Amino acid sequence: MIILGLDPGLGTTGWGVILTEGNRLSHVANGQIKTDPKMALASRLLQLDLELADLIKEFKPDAAAVEEVFVNANPQSTLKLGQARGVVLLGASRGGVEVGEYAARAVKKSVVGVGKADKDQVQAMIRILLPGAEIAGADAADALAVAITHAHHRG
Amino acid sequence: MIILGLDPGLGTTGWGVILTEGNRLSHVANGQIKTDPKMALASRLLQLDLELADLIKEFKPDAAAVEEVFVNANPQSTLKLGQARGVVLLGASRGGVEVGEYAARAVKKSVVGVGKADKDQVQAMIRILLPGAEIAGADAADALAVAITHAHHRG
Repeated sequence: MIILGLDPGLGTTGWGVILTEGNRLSHVANGQIKTDPKMALASRLLQLDLELADLIKEFKPDAAAVEEVFVNANPQSTLKLGQARGVVLLGASRGGVEVGEYAARAVKKSVVGVGKADKDQVQAMIRILLPGAEIAGADAADALAVAITHAHHRG
Repeated sequence: MIILGLDPGLGTTGWGVILTEGNRLSHVANGQIKTDPKMALASRLLQLDLELADLIKEFKPDAAAVEEVFVNANPQSTLKLGQARGVVLLGASRGGVEVGEYAARAVKKSVVGVGKADKDQVQAMIRILLPGAEIAGADAADALAVAITHAHHRG
């Protein structure tokens, strides 16, 4: 089973693809989609949508997973995140891919074993769970973490 | 010129289509896209996207206009609105339609003549500016208002 994890953001959306075979997980690819803050909002969302559609075409995931959102204290940031998240959820479901949503706590518990792990612990565990993966950045790591979570919950 | 005004929301997205010929405005159609709160978020966004794509195919707007968002004090509402708004902005720009964004104040000023008009004054003015239009609801009225604003700013 191929799982696409996504960590949506207007500026940077992390993505990570893993393969599950029985109990085994392996890394396929990961990266970050970046949009130019100087472009109009609609154009940034369009770029995000097109790049996500390319990923879905390339990796043909059987499932997608997205972290449930930590609602930011700053309403303007929440709105930006929401706009990107809407486009990402749409892009996955338009491709006919079922989308799982997981709370941040569930992701940490799944990857590190406890719900209160910090970002560095999550990244360290991802390097152990997916040996050899070169991780494109913090958002790509979060995307791989939510993909792993989905694998555990399906398994 | 055909202008599609949109008032995005996850539960209800208002839409309104007007025609401008020189200084004249006329009403073409308006309505509201509703999504079922019992459905999964990704499915609701997909439904919104599909219905918006149908509208764009049917009315072939030359331009679209969306109100800039009043950021709600409730972060969960802001996130929901953001997700719907992202899908709406994407849907319009994917159709190759240029999207104008206008502050609520600018919309009120354009429709009623003052920036501090209330919702009832806006609706009353829309009935005067677009005689004969049967308005599907408050969100459809807001969508027609932002379409009229776009017409004035282009004019």
